[in-house]
Amino acid sequence: MNQERIRRVIANMEAEGLTQMIVSSTASLYYLTGLWMEPHERMIALYLDDTGRAKLFGNEIFGIVPPQGLPLSVHKDGENPVKDLAREIRPGKLGIDKFWSSKFLIGLMELRPDMTPVQGSGPVDKARMRKDSLEIEALRRSSAFNDKVVEQVIAKVKEGAVENQLAAEVNRLYLELGADCEGVQLVCFGPNGADPHHSADGTVVKAGDSVTFDIFIPFNRYWCDMTRTVFFREAGEKQRQVYDLVLRANLAAIEKIKPGVFLSEIDKTARDIIAEGGYGPYFTHRLGHGVGLECHEPPDVGNVSEFPLEPGMVFSVEPGIYLPGEFGVRIEDLVLVTENGCEVLNKAPKELRIVE
Amino acid sequence: MNQERIRRVIANMEAEGLTQMIVSSTASLYYLTGLWMEPHERMIALYLDDTGRAKLFGNEIFGIVPPQGLPLSVHKDGENPVKDLAREIRPGKLGIDKFWSSKFLIGLMELRPDMTPVQGSGPVDKARMRKDSLEIEALRRSSAFNDKVVEQVIAKVKEGAVENQLAAEVNRLYLELGADCEGVQLVCFGPNGADPHHSADGTVVKAGDSVTFDIFIPFNRYWCDMTRTVFFREAGEKQRQVYDLVLRANLAAIEKIKPGVFLSEIDKTARDIIAEGGYGPYFTHRLGHGVGLECHEPPDVGNVSEFPLEPGMVFSVEPGIYLPGEFGVRIEDLVLVTENGCEVLNKAPKELRIVE
Repeated sequence: MNQERIRRVIANMEAEGLTQMIVSSTASLYYLTGLWMEPHERMIALYLDDTGRAKLFGNEIFGIVPPQGLPLSVHKDGENPVKDLAREIRPGKLGIDKFWSSKFLIGLMELRPDMTPVQGSGPVDKARMRKDSLEIEALRRSSAFNDKVVEQVIAKVKEGAVENQLAAEVNRLYLELGADCEGVQLVCFGPNGADPHHSADGTVVKAGDSVTFDIFIPFNRYWCDMTRTVFFREAGEKQRQVYDLVLRANLAAIEKIKPGVFLSEIDKTARDIIAEGGYGPYFTHRLGHGVGLECHEPPDVGNVSEFPLEPGMVFSVEPGIYLPGEFGVRIEDLVLVTENGCEVLNKAPKELRIVE
Repeated sequence: MNQERIRRVIANMEAEGLTQMIVSSTASLYYLTGLWMEPHERMIALYLDDTGRAKLFGNEIFGIVPPQGLPLSVHKDGENPVKDLAREIRPGKLGIDKFWSSKFLIGLMELRPDMTPVQGSGPVDKARMRKDSLEIEALRRSSAFNDKVVEQVIAKVKEGAVENQLAAEVNRLYLELGADCEGVQLVCFGPNGADPHHSADGTVVKAGDSVTFDIFIPFNRYWCDMTRTVFFREAGEKQRQVYDLVLRANLAAIEKIKPGVFLSEIDKTARDIIAEGGYGPYFTHRLGHGVGLECHEPPDVGNVSEFPLEPGMVFSVEPGIYLPGEFGVRIEDLVLVTENGCEVLNKAPKELRIVE
């Protein structure tokens, strides 16, 4: 158990008026216990109260070897998975992790009608938002690998290049560098780039295409996530204008980042530049998202994120302009909020590039 | 909306004493509405009552185009996702789909304290267990593709073969035949086969290794899932004995399948043969699982499955023996329960094979 993290979680519980809660997400459990467990349809739950008393409940199939000092209660397939947990909890409010399956919560409510479930992810999510030094090191390392990979794959944008072959190449490069797994990499040529979530397919690159790489993978559990857009052989006037606007939005948002500024202001800074350039309706998503043990985690960097920046936050800054039937441009970096400003974790160049 | 399926679900609701419920799983929503939606952290819910009144609630980002006759209520990021749903439900019991995130259920309970959540996946799960003719055709087709692929990849077990290269080859063959996506394929040589969930890695095949392929993918949404074990160059006496036992367990369990027999009896038939052969402790998992729109879905084929077989059920029969440090053998087929017995969907040969 990481006692420093547990202390921060308990302080957050007190601030929210929670005296007990259940943590169930894979990443949050890893953050607190060092155990990586993917329960799928089976039950896993860490009970934690405001005195620091903790107990882990899980299916025997996970083969859990708990860290020292963490009691473990094991159940089997076919048994009621929440039976032992129901004996542990106290009457009154119980914080519940956001993605815990309803079937377990309903099972618990049936056994303990004196318990009132409330939203309970806040204390761990808030702790996880402020990365500690080990996490910052891991995130810097992952993004340094991503900088290498994006350059190597941009060098492969040549006559005959196919989206899904480049996506496979990204995964191959990741594995070579020691990534935890392969992933779904976004590679989009020309009009495909106008869909921010286009999956790489058999499209072949054509002269004048925008070429967007949005690539992300975990190394040693911590994710990188970066987007670069280049142009194949030529870029028209409109493409250059759009690229310039997206780059200015990316840079201005990053310039604005320091402790105390609201996340929504960061989003607005980028959004205003794109709107003033006349492309407001074509920037169709939030500016960014937290990154850490999950590729998408708190904080949300959007126009309703009324939340001040704090040192240790790591999130993406990824403005984009998407023109259906024509092309798309997105430029994404991960940033770490520091005491006075921010550190951009991605160093790969961002100026307009025409390749081949 | 598939009205025949809705009618079956409503009949199941009545049998369980449910008058209203929420369906949220991707596969169950597809089964009823024809819409395939993967909501990740966002909210999706189909409200259904026992009069057949249905309404779909989802985030605008899904871009849902509902089927004719299905009203749709759309919410945005930043809004309370269950606000409209809370207005729709009636007081009293509300069935909740098993994997719906607790945060939505808690949100709903806060807005509607007059509502009592109860386990609510049964009516759709029971309907989905009895495949209709369209589904049976899709499942036959997927397994026919799997028969082809397993033969082609067994032919590649040669000097120098590497687990993860064969796994990649399986995915390549699947995509060539039109699979929906790539997947994680299990390829295990020798001692790796003693872990029923071993992930393919850089292990190179050696003479005398057992070689297990457990391969599965969806074609047009419906999954295949089959396991074959062969031996590379030679098989020792113990390997032959274990193979024979697993094959007899597979065949005897299949022989036993017909409507009315309990699922637990099918499991027991296979388990008894392996136990009588002296390897009981090394058959460490349930005999099988339902297969359809999900690779693992009801029914569970295990020793506590006190549930009679019905025509239209499709599930796996996959006995195995796992000898740590030595080798593993598993033989898995998908079967369809018919009026008088069963149809084995996999036709790939099962007799002992020494390859190369």
